[in-house]
Amino acid sequence: MCTTGLLLLARCRKPPPSSRTSAYCGVRKPPSLLQARCFHRSQLLRTLSLRDLPDRVCHDSPATEPAGKDPSAIALHSALPRFLRWPQPPRTVLIINKPHDEPTRVAFLEVTSWLRQSHPSITIIVEPATAAEAGSEMLDLVVADNSEDLTRVVDFVITLGGDGTILHTSSLFPTRVPPIISFSLGTLGFLIPFGIGDFRTALQNLIAGPAVPLLHRTRLTCAFFRANGLRIVTDGLDTDLQAMNDIVLHRGRHPHLTITECSVDGEFLTGGIADGLIVSTPTGSTAYSLSAGGPLVHPAVSSLILTPICPRSLSFRPALLPPTSTIRLRLSRASRVQADVSVDGRDVHLLGREEYVEVRASRWGIPCVAKGDGGRDWVGGINRTLKWNQSFVNTFKEP
Amino acid sequence: MCTTGLLLLARCRKPPPSSRTSAYCGVRKPPSLLQARCFHRSQLLRTLSLRDLPDRVCHDSPATEPAGKDPSAIALHSALPRFLRWPQPPRTVLIINKPHDEPTRVAFLEVTSWLRQSHPSITIIVEPATAAEAGSEMLDLVVADNSEDLTRVVDFVITLGGDGTILHTSSLFPTRVPPIISFSLGTLGFLIPFGIGDFRTALQNLIAGPAVPLLHRTRLTCAFFRANGLRIVTDGLDTDLQAMNDIVLHRGRHPHLTITECSVDGEFLTGGIADGLIVSTPTGSTAYSLSAGGPLVHPAVSSLILTPICPRSLSFRPALLPPTSTIRLRLSRASRVQADVSVDGRDVHLLGREEYVEVRASRWGIPCVAKGDGGRDWVGGINRTLKWNQSFVNTFKEP
Amino acid sequence: MCTTGLLLLARCRKPPPSSRTSAYCGVRKPPSLLQARCFHRSQLLRTLSLRDLPDRVCHDSPATEPAGKDPSAIALHSALPRFLRWPQPPRTVLIINKPHDEPTRVAFLEVTSWLRQSHPSITIIVEPATAAEAGSEMLDLVVADNSEDLTRVVDFVITLGGDGTILHTSSLFPTRVPPIISFSLGTLGFLIPFGIGDFRTALQNLIAGPAVPLLHRTRLTCAFFRANGLRIVTDGLDTDLQAMNDIVLHRGRHPHLTITECSVDGEFLTGGIADGLIVSTPTGSTAYSLSAGGPLVHPAVSSLILTPICPRSLSFRPALLPPTSTIRLRLSRASRVQADVSVDGRDVHLLGREEYVEVRASRWGIPCVAKGDGGRDWVGGINRTLKWNQSFVNTFKEP
Amino acid sequence: MCTTGLLLLARCRKPPPSSRTSAYCGVRKPPSLLQARCFHRSQLLRTLSLRDLPDRVCHDSPATEPAGKDPSAIALHSALPRFLRWPQPPRTVLIINKPHDEPTRVAFLEVTSWLRQSHPSITIIVEPATAAEAGSEMLDLVVADNSEDLTRVVDFVITLGGDGTILHTSSLFPTRVPPIISFSLGTLGFLIPFGIGDFRTALQNLIAGPAVPLLHRTRLTCAFFRANGLRIVTDGLDTDLQAMNDIVLHRGRHPHLTITECSVDGEFLTGGIADGLIVSTPTGSTAYSLSAGGPLVHPAVSSLILTPICPRSLSFRPALLPPTSTIRLRLSRASRVQADVSVDGRDVHLLGREEYVEVRASRWGIPCVAKGDGGRDWVGGINRTLKWNQSFVNTFKEP
Repeated sequence: MCTTGLLLLARCRKPPPSSRTSAYCGVRKPPSLLQARCFHRSQLLRTLSLRDLPDRVCHDSPATEPAGKDPSAIALHSALPRFLRWPQPPRTVLIINKPHDEPTRVAFLEVTSWLRQSHPSITIIVEPATAAEAGSEMLDLVVADNSEDLTRVVDFVITLGGDGTILHTSSLFPTRVPPIISFSLGTLGFLIPFGIGDFRTALQNLIAGPAVPLLHRTRLTCAFFRANGLRIVTDGLDTDLQAMNDIVLHRGRHPHLTITECSVDGEFLTGGIADGLIVSTPTGSTAYSLSAGGPLVHPAVSSLILTPICPRSLSFRPALLPPTSTIRLRLSRASRVQADVSVDGRDVHLLGREEYVEVRASRWGIPCVAKGDGGRDWVGGINRTLKWNQSFVNTFKEP
Repeated sequence: MCTTGLLLLARCRKPPPSSRTSAYCGVRKPPSLLQARCFHRSQLLRTLSLRDLPDRVCHDSPATEPAGKDPSAIALHSALPRFLRWPQPPRTVLIINKPHDEPTRVAFLEVTSWLRQSHPSITIIVEPATAAEAGSEMLDLVVADNSEDLTRVVDFVITLGGDGTILHTSSLFPTRVPPIISFSLGTLGFLIPFGIGDFRTALQNLIAGPAVPLLHRTRLTCAFFRANGLRIVTDGLDTDLQAMNDIVLHRGRHPHLTITECSVDGEFLTGGIADGLIVSTPTGSTAYSLSAGGPLVHPAVSSLILTPICPRSLSFRPALLPPTSTIRLRLSRASRVQADVSVDGRDVHLLGREEYVEVRASRWGIPCVAKGDGGRDWVGGINRTLKWNQSFVNTFKEP
Repeated sequence: MCTTGLLLLARCRKPPPSSRTSAYCGVRKPPSLLQARCFHRSQLLRTLSLRDLPDRVCHDSPATEPAGKDPSAIALHSALPRFLRWPQPPRTVLIINKPHDEPTRVAFLEVTSWLRQSHPSITIIVEPATAAEAGSEMLDLVVADNSEDLTRVVDFVITLGGDGTILHTSSLFPTRVPPIISFSLGTLGFLIPFGIGDFRTALQNLIAGPAVPLLHRTRLTCAFFRANGLRIVTDGLDTDLQAMNDIVLHRGRHPHLTITECSVDGEFLTGGIADGLIVSTPTGSTAYSLSAGGPLVHPAVSSLILTPICPRSLSFRPALLPPTSTIRLRLSRASRVQADVSVDGRDVHLLGREEYVEVRASRWGIPCVAKGDGGRDWVGGINRTLKWNQSFVNTFKEP
Repeated sequence: MCTTGLLLLARCRKPPPSSRTSAYCGVRKPPSLLQARCFHRSQLLRTLSLRDLPDRVCHDSPATEPAGKDPSAIALHSALPRFLRWPQPPRTVLIINKPHDEPTRVAFLEVTSWLRQSHPSITIIVEPATAAEAGSEMLDLVVADNSEDLTRVVDFVITLGGDGTILHTSSLFPTRVPPIISFSLGTLGFLIPFGIGDFRTALQNLIAGPAVPLLHRTRLTCAFFRANGLRIVTDGLDTDLQAMNDIVLHRGRHPHLTITECSVDGEFLTGGIADGLIVSTPTGSTAYSLSAGGPLVHPAVSSLILTPICPRSLSFRPALLPPTSTIRLRLSRASRVQADVSVDGRDVHLLGREEYVEVRASRWGIPCVAKGDGGRDWVGGINRTLKWNQSFVNTFKEP
């Protein structure tokens, strides 16, 4: 629809020469904000790089730091929401929009206007498509063009739209994820506790504090291997893929069932003869896993959920495994077909016979700004969104 | 069958006067072992008290210490098995038998004989019924007659028989539970990783080290309240009840469904119109909750499982809540009947309308000696015992 | 609340001497209607017997005739609704009310007034409690005092209230059931396709024709036997019990599971270790069986549904058996407890070890007046009442 | 692998000129058997047509006759097995083999040898692949080359192998299906009650009588339509497709859910947002429907089973509809993707938006030779093959 080359929306800035060297928040020192705000109209026709932005402000959230091999670190994910405190005010925000949606476009303009007025020092970053939809009146946007730099510079993320915007945000940050605040333009959901009508208050609290509650959502990471154990490069990436919801192995449109050997921490667990298998996060327990018969799992219950899809067994009940597990799904030699493997609903690899995928909890979770204490958002979600435990008509009237 | 008064099995001992005062392992100093081993045949006709035994040896297992209000402490339960290390050799063992079972009686005699020979300094404690079944040849047993002292003095527990022996052991220790090693006389199960044939090696490893893996199983605790919020004393106890498997609210034989208001951490979660509701530990996920449709949950997945029993709803899917949750089940005014509440299968209270029970994870879990690394035992259990994911005949033949 | 002795509501009538001998509709000839309508105020203080009413008018519904051993006759139940045609106008109606409910009482008065005016020749029969609630202004009612005679004389039944009124009606007719038309005072349900607001049109169509659609609902019949095969008399009846919904074997409040040997047509089917077992009609598929996980079964699908209640098995999927099956549930010797057996929610027998209950489709189904073609009522029921297949929020918006 | 042109296996025969005109069994008169058995070696290089074989012998099985619009005729399907009686000895058998399987090839040679010796007058028909595998020693085979003629001439069918052979047989007979007797070379299954070891007795009983029990299995028929209601020709056929197991609508490998409007007899039933929907026969209830969570349905329970595949709803319980229903599955305009429709596991059409498929019970069921009384085979199947209601270890020991 729109190519980056056509985007006339950018900011000019004189890159601070020393910015890549001096560390700030473990990374590097920020440039002077005054420097950063000088515009050169003549440069509007090129898309500015993110590389000139300062390193992100490191918020007080140890759980997003690498967990390493220490199981107690992963266990911390199971704690209820902690609080976000800025050591200094945030300076850059990435705004992610649901595309091709007029109400979202309008909301985007309102949010950016408010940010410009209330927090003029905050740099606003958007994706090319968002910039294109915003139109020429929004000249003061930095267009995201480099995932690595995004991870380095973004202090927090605003999403406008549905759950898809958060999944997309997750995919933009293969390692450390900045705090995300999400606004719904329709019904509130699991991932979106805030209505767009409250954006001023919610953003003011997030930016100016004193502290907002965070819900740390576990992600999965996966890697693919050949029968001989050699790593398969997928997606053109040498890094592990990150999943917020789930990693799914599925027969696709082949009529034959997949036959998968499933092992945990190197030990054979079971042979799955099924349409497919899902390894899900607690967040993903209300996505595909739920459709396949899995339980509802609160995001603070640290675990991996193994749910079969239409198994050829009467007794393949879903199972919850410890967050420290490494699950290996190996397509059996007996399987007649290859299997599609998808990450958060996106096909990433066609698994051949005897190839396998290894899934484990990622050290890089997602800190989501919660409304109250996280639990409340979830309860609302399962009742309002999923219509959990709907009573039959006329059976429950509490006096 | 047998009354305590008839038990002629006991040990004499001169109580060390200072034993209640000097602290050991945070409790008190142990008596001299030489003191403890003097017998007076003339006293055989009375049941000796446990009060004269030294305080237990505190093993290296911080997870069994009180967790307090710190959520990260509870989160530690989710870690995979730690290791049991004795600061000094254990001195007292409680042996729990499946009653009225001849193979168990025989196994008991073998185990005690071996202990006498291999570890003569270890005091063997049994329950009255076990002593009676053991017969007069087993004179050198201390008969348990006081739960409070049991908790104080028992260094570790051996169970012989089925899962019931472990549930029973759990009921004997309302607070701190010593490490339990369990031997099956038949099929190995979830809770019983060791076959009786291996008892010598397993006990030698446990007693002499260097370190055996422990799986810390979460317990639930519950308390009952009147409509006005006043605590109801059940079971003649002023302490909270402890459940290793589950706490179940059920209509009993009343034809009418129970109507229960279920809230979590003070917030309304759902109205349950059903035969009943189960709050289960991960350990109990393979007990009643499984029959009612709940998922399999590894004991290292720290969580509370809420599973409805025959709900009057098409959409009451089981849900997993954080281990820090307090779940309140309040019998609605609209409920036509009272509801039985049982703890680990034992009826403890008949809940009236508007009365409620509060359930939460106990600070006192159960350290179970694991065979390998805990995970392996569980995998064996779900496959061998529960016949999880049994393939249909002739559908999976891996070359 | 009210005793029969207080009911001053009755009709006098000179019994036609020949009425029990001359056959009409295969039974006997009706008395003159003029005869039947003479009242003697002086007799109001005694409850009149039904024995003086003429035999019922036999409607055109072969499926309610005895099916005998011919399987094809039972197969006819699977046909979609047939039509009710009166060979002559109906003369007696039984009205069944939900008790102790003011809106129902008002509706009852409206219905009877309309019947009096529009169809003065129809005799109205009620149960004692209904008569008492109706009050003294309703003098012209025959009070039902004899189930045998009810079966003989009632041409059709009106029920006012909820599903319970139809279950109650079923229990009043242990053999042949007259057509039933049911009016809801609240939400329409499976069994109640008509709203009370439409009663004039619906009753006029039913009484004056030309033909209204009927849905024949299968009933179950059951009988109890000792270990030695001798019949057990339950309920003080020597006739088989009739169930419109289900026959349920349940552990009641015993903590131990029932162990039941389930056989079909003399052949061992399975051993059920469970809280209980349900044998359900298609009508009952939306009652207890649904709560226990059974499928939705349209009433025109001729079958018996076997659904376990909380089985100790991962693979005890519900099963549908042919309508010609005889299902025997025998409490195993290994069962530790007796089992409650209930019929349509009413406990009728405590089954001892090695005793058994035999369940089969009854030859006496229930002809229910349907609104459109039966299918439509059912579709409305599963969607509106049970909230079947409720979409998640915001996922299905057909343009 | 092998083409028809290479098959040197055939029989010569002088076609009886009158064979197409004189009716036998409603079709035409058979030729003299002596005529049929004359061979001309010189003609071995061409594949003989079936057209010269006599019309089939009409067995005593009214249920395989057209049912028409009379619902009672369809209802007859629900009757338990009837009996096969030949008015005269059968003269032609079609043998269907599992391909590329050496044990099956050996069994085929044994069966044909026995037939040759014991019933030399019976003509043996095979498919080209079977003839090729049989080798040159089997010269006396008629190679099937015309489905229309197959339907006309085959008196009964023998299948050797697994369930797939019966599904394949079903696909060969788009209208009237001759009786099928199936032999397993491994485990007995639902569709295969006979072990190959018993073939002599079983075939002798079938051919020489007096009467063998038949289980009539319902088939489905389906047809495809454009949004404008015009019929879509699929599979190059203008006849309706026949399904023995199921008709499945599925998203295939598209990540997006299908959105399907499901109506029954012209009335909207529900909107299915799911991976797909299954309409299954009772026979197919143990195939894909079972994997998707559907109930076990005895083949004598006349019904259509609607089972969702991974629905985006907590409350989409499977539903059983009357055998007289016409189910329409229309792909919604809101659906983002086309949907694969498969018949008995074979993709037959890619359904576009607003196109629909109509499914109903076929008038052409499948008469399967049963071992005992049909019920017994099914009970064996669900217990032995599906491992239905497997008890947990050590929980059920009947003394």
